Amino acid sequence: MAEERGRRPGNPRTKEQILTAAIESFVAHGYGGTTIRAVARAAGVDPALVMHFFGSKDGLFAAAIKESMPVTLMVEAIDGDEAHIAERLAARYLSLWEDPAHGPTLKAVLQAAAATPAAADLLKDLMRTELLGPLMRNLSQDHAELRTLLAASHMIGLAMMRYVLKVEPLASTPAHLVAAAVAPALQRYLTGTLTLAETADSR
Amino acid sequence: MAEERGRRPGNPRTKEQILTAAIESFVAHGYGGTTIRAVARAAGVDPALVMHFFGSKDGLFAAAIKESMPVTLMVEAIDGDEAHIAERLAARYLSLWEDPAHGPTLKAVLQAAAATPAAADLLKDLMRTELLGPLMRNLSQDHAELRTLLAASHMIGLAMMRYVLKVEPLASTPAHLVAAAVAPALQRYLTGTLTLAETADSR
Repeated sequence: MAEERGRRPGNPRTKEQILTAAIESFVAHGYGGTTIRAVARAAGVDPALVMHFFGSKDGLFAAAIKESMPVTLMVEAIDGDEAHIAERLAARYLSLWEDPAHGPTLKAVLQAAAATPAAADLLKDLMRTELLGPLMRNLSQDHAELRTLLAASHMIGLAMMRYVLKVEPLASTPAHLVAAAVAPALQRYLTGTLTLAETADSR
Repeated sequence: MAEERGRRPGNPRTKEQILTAAIESFVAHGYGGTTIRAVARAAGVDPALVMHFFGSKDGLFAAAIKESMPVTLMVEAIDGDEAHIAERLAARYLSLWEDPAHGPTLKAVLQAAAATPAAADLLKDLMRTELLGPLMRNLSQDHAELRTLLAASHMIGLAMMRYVLKVEPLASTPAHLVAAAVAPALQRYLTGTLTLAETADSR
């Protein structure tokens, strides 16, 4: 579609095409292997236009994460009764990783964040504002932020072992069994009794 | 020490020097940024000697992991009563990550495994033979392998959040509080009641 190409900053479809090309490149080649030039070529635009929209490779990566991460679908799973919040989150999280529309992007983002400090900072910002924020607001306990991070750490590690490292037999255990196994651990972090600050006793 | 250099495959100190240089390079530049040539230069030997000892970059990485991972210190923490195994493991694991002698290497290995399939395979082999094996043999429950991996997934994710991504307030929470918070989750995986196989009910 030639009319979609060229230097027209006002065209939202051009921006969309750049983002799509960027996501594909980050998934296929990682953060380190992605260049503004290659993304511009794949999107059929001038590199200067990519810079115009996104400012830098970091800006492009941030926009690509934001565009491709299924944040809304995770946030949906937060809503509902607090007593079953972990069941909903674990099931939704695993189903997103299993989904061919989301799994490869999630993997690319996790790998980029593990390998590249700039990518890690971008993922942290997105997690904090888009995901941990809504989750924390739904928790009635003290230390909501630390609780949320303990649960998130488990979920990230689960994805590392199951989808990135693909360690068996964890990788081939049915997702609903894995979700059922981890949900109580997550529920305890989110709503259970924890000692998360120093007290006279804990020192 | 000129007498340590040169092509003398039989000299264990030469091999040691190559390994030290390799570990330093993997920590500083990652798996992707490490080359046989640069390691050889840093160790003061010919690249052919590195190939002679380790066969390939993967072989060098495998040897470096094996040399530098504090496997024995983790295995020590397995020994003891099963009822407190998670307390011991969580405390030891966090203290190793906190230790300047081990933390940077653990981080380099985790980052390499996240970013590079070849490095992931090497880490998986090492985990399976050196760490999960001894842990599994100390568990009396069914599904020892899957239980061990669920616990390991949590520990890996905790390291990702706390030491690689450095997400606050988790990163600055005292290690003993974090260990106390996660130990019950790990203990449940290792010795608690879990449904880890399909039954007529769980389908």
